[in-house]
Amino acid sequence: MKFRLKVEVGLKPGHSDPEGETTARLLRELGYRVERVNVSKVYTVFLEANSRDEALAKANEMCRRLLANPTKDNYTIIVEEEK
Amino acid sequence: MKFRLKVEVGLKPGHSDPEGETTARLLRELGYRVERVNVSKVYTVFLEANSRDEALAKANEMCRRLLANPTKDNYTIIVEEEK
Repeated sequence: MKFRLKVEVGLKPGHSDPEGETTARLLRELGYRVERVNVSKVYTVFLEANSRDEALAKANEMCRRLLANPTKDNYTIIVEEEK
Repeated sequence: MKFRLKVEVGLKPGHSDPEGETTARLLRELGYRVERVNVSKVYTVFLEANSRDEALAKANEMCRRLLANPTKDNYTIIVEEEK
């Protein structure tokens, strides 16, 4: 079975996000009433797995082993079956 | 009213995604049955606006003016009202 994992990796609260701060400043300079911007990254992973549970377990493993830095990142995972 | 915009900016199909290709290769080397990885960026923008429609219109404008490159990027926008 084919699955599409959407893994969003962003900074934990309290960690400095210079790209978000710069984006917020630029948007304010363009006239938008922006309070704050956070920037995160999404990995859309097309994975072969035997079940949805296996796909989710693999996605968690991938985050711990490669995609996220446990010291500074949070992550969320969405698993969708590919038709 | 306060809104949270989630703006996901990714490459249009056919554009080279070296970060996605490298991530796919590394995941395969770790033993995962990965066909492909696409990498995109999410800007979570905390915006003051008078209505949901205004927030969505501003978000589209922000994409055209700053967040996305119309030549190579696609974007999607989700608008949520902040409580």
